[in-house]
Amino acid sequence: MILEKIKKPNDIHKVSLEDFPRLAEEIRSFLIQTVSETGGHLASNLGVVELTLALHNVLDFPQDKLIWDVGHQAYTHKILTGRKDGFKELRKEGGLSGFPKRNESDCDSFDTGHSSNSISAGLGYVRARDLLGEKYNVVSVIGDGALTGGMAYEALNNAAELKTNFIIIINDNNMSISKNVGGMSTYLSVLRTAEVYTGMKLGVTKTLKKIPHVGTAVVDTVRKTKSSIKQLIIPGMLFENMGLTYLGPVDGHNMRQMMKLFNEAKRVEGPVVVHVLTEKGRGYGPASMHPERFHGTGPFDIQSGKTLAEKTVPCYTDCFSRALCSVAEKNPKVVAITAAMPDGTGLSRFQKKFPERFFDVGIAEEHAVTFAAGLALGGMIPVFAVYSSFLQRGFDQIVHDVCMQNLHVIFAIDRAGFVGADGETHHGCFDLSYLSMIPNMTVMAPKNGKELADMLKYAVELDGPCAIRYPKGAVCTEMEDYNEPLEKGRSEVITRGSDIAVLGVGSMVSVCQKVCEELKDQGLAEATLVNARFVKPLDTSLLDELSRNHSLLVTVEENVKSGGFGEHVSAYMEACHPEVRVLPLAIGDRFIEHGTVGSQRAKTGLNVQGILEAVEQCRTDLEDKRK
Amino acid sequence: MILEKIKKPNDIHKVSLEDFPRLAEEIRSFLIQTVSETGGHLASNLGVVELTLALHNVLDFPQDKLIWDVGHQAYTHKILTGRKDGFKELRKEGGLSGFPKRNESDCDSFDTGHSSNSISAGLGYVRARDLLGEKYNVVSVIGDGALTGGMAYEALNNAAELKTNFIIIINDNNMSISKNVGGMSTYLSVLRTAEVYTGMKLGVTKTLKKIPHVGTAVVDTVRKTKSSIKQLIIPGMLFENMGLTYLGPVDGHNMRQMMKLFNEAKRVEGPVVVHVLTEKGRGYGPASMHPERFHGTGPFDIQSGKTLAEKTVPCYTDCFSRALCSVAEKNPKVVAITAAMPDGTGLSRFQKKFPERFFDVGIAEEHAVTFAAGLALGGMIPVFAVYSSFLQRGFDQIVHDVCMQNLHVIFAIDRAGFVGADGETHHGCFDLSYLSMIPNMTVMAPKNGKELADMLKYAVELDGPCAIRYPKGAVCTEMEDYNEPLEKGRSEVITRGSDIAVLGVGSMVSVCQKVCEELKDQGLAEATLVNARFVKPLDTSLLDELSRNHSLLVTVEENVKSGGFGEHVSAYMEACHPEVRVLPLAIGDRFIEHGTVGSQRAKTGLNVQGILEAVEQCRTDLEDKRK
Repeated sequence: MILEKIKKPNDIHKVSLEDFPRLAEEIRSFLIQTVSETGGHLASNLGVVELTLALHNVLDFPQDKLIWDVGHQAYTHKILTGRKDGFKELRKEGGLSGFPKRNESDCDSFDTGHSSNSISAGLGYVRARDLLGEKYNVVSVIGDGALTGGMAYEALNNAAELKTNFIIIINDNNMSISKNVGGMSTYLSVLRTAEVYTGMKLGVTKTLKKIPHVGTAVVDTVRKTKSSIKQLIIPGMLFENMGLTYLGPVDGHNMRQMMKLFNEAKRVEGPVVVHVLTEKGRGYGPASMHPERFHGTGPFDIQSGKTLAEKTVPCYTDCFSRALCSVAEKNPKVVAITAAMPDGTGLSRFQKKFPERFFDVGIAEEHAVTFAAGLALGGMIPVFAVYSSFLQRGFDQIVHDVCMQNLHVIFAIDRAGFVGADGETHHGCFDLSYLSMIPNMTVMAPKNGKELADMLKYAVELDGPCAIRYPKGAVCTEMEDYNEPLEKGRSEVITRGSDIAVLGVGSMVSVCQKVCEELKDQGLAEATLVNARFVKPLDTSLLDELSRNHSLLVTVEENVKSGGFGEHVSAYMEACHPEVRVLPLAIGDRFIEHGTVGSQRAKTGLNVQGILEAVEQCRTDLEDKRK
Repeated sequence: MILEKIKKPNDIHKVSLEDFPRLAEEIRSFLIQTVSETGGHLASNLGVVELTLALHNVLDFPQDKLIWDVGHQAYTHKILTGRKDGFKELRKEGGLSGFPKRNESDCDSFDTGHSSNSISAGLGYVRARDLLGEKYNVVSVIGDGALTGGMAYEALNNAAELKTNFIIIINDNNMSISKNVGGMSTYLSVLRTAEVYTGMKLGVTKTLKKIPHVGTAVVDTVRKTKSSIKQLIIPGMLFENMGLTYLGPVDGHNMRQMMKLFNEAKRVEGPVVVHVLTEKGRGYGPASMHPERFHGTGPFDIQSGKTLAEKTVPCYTDCFSRALCSVAEKNPKVVAITAAMPDGTGLSRFQKKFPERFFDVGIAEEHAVTFAAGLALGGMIPVFAVYSSFLQRGFDQIVHDVCMQNLHVIFAIDRAGFVGADGETHHGCFDLSYLSMIPNMTVMAPKNGKELADMLKYAVELDGPCAIRYPKGAVCTEMEDYNEPLEKGRSEVITRGSDIAVLGVGSMVSVCQKVCEELKDQGLAEATLVNARFVKPLDTSLLDELSRNHSLLVTVEENVKSGGFGEHVSAYMEACHPEVRVLPLAIGDRFIEHGTVGSQRAKTGLNVQGILEAVEQCRTDLEDKRK
């Protein structure tokens, strides 16, 4: 095993070039074996094995800075920097993260997780390096999917002014998580064609001789070679026009070619885009055939490629998926938008049924939100299905383009609350706060799958901006008998008691139910159980009512405390019923790393035991004060 | 006066083409006269007089949809749609807004204010139009400055897939508010050159004959005409490469040429970019010479171009500007970033003194934040100076790229609170909430200019993400004797009293001081006056202390109530000192339209009188309860 020789950063420099293909093979086997056991991102990692080897061959760590956009393709990088043994505990609590983490290794230069930011971070490093007179290489690796995100373009636009070296690698596999979309993607596809490919190789050296500025050098090249018809699709002209030197495309599985090009790229005095063609899922049949299914996967059987954990209960995403199709059948104005995640958001079903009414806009949440606003003004009812943490990208657009104009846009927010293995970059822990602060917005969270469907129906009929947030994972099928019709801003009282009222938001309602049962079983209280339903508007009339025969309101939400449901309830009670104590349970002021959702809830006191302990503590305090 | 004939939308169709130049002249005179009296955006509006006339000539309102990016250039559009008389009250309370507003006219298709979103909104309209089988034109007008914003690119990328007509006009004046920056800007400059210009005109008709896809048609054109050297800088190739038809450039002050091109653009079956060259400030010497000074202006003397209101007191921006230079002189690691607003943010001074340490990244707040993160990791101390409402664009990047990695990035947040005449799109009313919910973030607000300087010094020494937010307008010079050294998370007690404590945040501290004086004068209370200083971390030890001899804490902040300082104080007191009443005064749950800052504060109860009334009401309630 050559892989055995790789114990620490730069050990790769000791491997002879002839052994690189075998090493690549060993790494692939290791990745397939490991991820089949632990789950994780597979297809993206299989695609960049050779790319990573080539990069490690031409770079020195930790001096050089390598920034992986999104970061779900950094497994080989982790292996090559002494973290191979950590893969046993990949994405588990206390174990190796699925993303680059500076606290894991000084060879990780930037903690990533969200898309399209690697060029910005890299440019920051470059400017700092130059100001401090230091010498090191900065390389940002960005996928063609991530290139659909606007901030990548903002950074390219800004990088164009640079006069010193900065290497931007486009890892082009013609995919986002699903098939890539948009004009840039089509453009890259043209560059991929063999004709250009061949034409290009000749151009590389010439291209390198020039100072890059606004494509005039390229034009010169064209002038000189205008007899060659191949040059007429001028490779990389789009990037050259922006003031970036373009090199490539190069076969991302041919290490010699890549290393040659990377070494050339290091000599360019200015920003240089290296276009690398890779195959997502390469080397493992099932992943190569269905890269979207093996983007992020649970444990699977290597032989068949089938996932091991069979789904017995549908997840919230499925539930939303069906509910949306159902409302869309009845109402032809309903349209759906995804930011490059038709599968993840459950919109694929909608896409198949209503292809004209479905829009995949690329990894472009800012655009998605304002596009939705335009659709609403044009007479449609757009539903933007998106993960909670990704919607953070569209915050300003929600404020300005949707809520300020009070437009009927529906936000179907998946992955709200803890997400488990993906960790801090993917939790949806802020949405209740950042959405409920915006005027005109309605914010809801369903207690179970049935209620999610009801809320969607309700949202379609409501005239104004509306958000429904629901968690990752299996749908809660409990409490289906409790389904009072939805009424604007009204919570649902599931059981009526006295003294203590427990108010749960969405995913926390079923947990709160168990808390109430436990309180009853222990003979402590016949607590009232409330399903908040609406975080905004707040059901103040229920709070007034509860104040009559309750001395303690416990609020529970899978969201940060700051600006969340609990603080709103607390502030209201403080103002109107100061005699009633409020105990707001929520996520404290810290980022929560990867693990299971269960452990993340336990860590933050948002499980039955944690809630019971907090209630107990609070009651003790209250009694102490009474004495 | 031809202008007299324009009373309502489409009246322009009755004006003969020969009279257009005179009409343009009359409109310019009207604009100069009006804005010299009321203040407003001048240079941008003077630049698009002919463009607007040409558009109104080829469009029908309100059927057709015209979306102005940012919207500070829509004055002529307002004049042509029956709102000329409203200009007397431009940007005044209850009067005409300085931006497009759907509630003003059905000829305004989208309420804008922030940059780079017009293509997204337009594309939404287009998709809705096509789905509903309607027929109308959709035109988005975007400046070359706004093209530096990533979401414009996200929208272009997405629009490339469109098969039906959508007109995107690039209003290219080679300026953002200040000089435009970046690769795209340089590229557009090349297209502006006379050589291309001439070469282009010939190409227009040919270009139109083709179905636009990935520039192959352009390539064909080039093949056919490769004898012509002029064609070698292929006009618009960057856009054509992305799958957009490119027409232009055209002289934005030649109405005949523009109308011809617009009519041709209407026939393109797909997205078409029309490149229009305009001169910012055209027709008024001082504005044409100094477009950045006449971007937004107060009342001025037409003859000399000098502003009428002389500044006697420096504003917070000045104060920040000086303070930053002072810390930067001492600490060479301090670098500064602006998103296209070197003047507005006060960074011009820094730029002159430390040109290498200054970065204008374009209208690109997302990139700016992550770029800052990269700079911090590279060893610098970046200060991102930005208006509060624009920073909303970088929310996710603040969470992920700065705070999650706990990086030392300083956010100098100007225009926090009400901004007056610009209205709802420009208020900085959310920052205390969206920043204080993020782990690791420190959030401060200074009571006066001196404290702003102190806070900046403190922030440079702090190791971690830190935000300082300060308001628009004249610096508060009061209370300069109160300047206890800054200590992490500690508020400053300015006067000690009992029973009532008034806790002000930043701009509200001086208002609170007057409230306390008034309470004393009226013999109602010897109130304690607190300058909060830190919104995060909260000074809980002071709150504990205050709880001993105060029955009421009044918090006052120029920020939404939801998730703000008051709710945090309220929640803390509710939990720890429920016997103390908290009265959180803040901006209620609605958007506040344009007017003066004074009237906006009055409207939301954030002036002396409003606060006194709220306190009085609260005391009455308390006494009623005691009875």
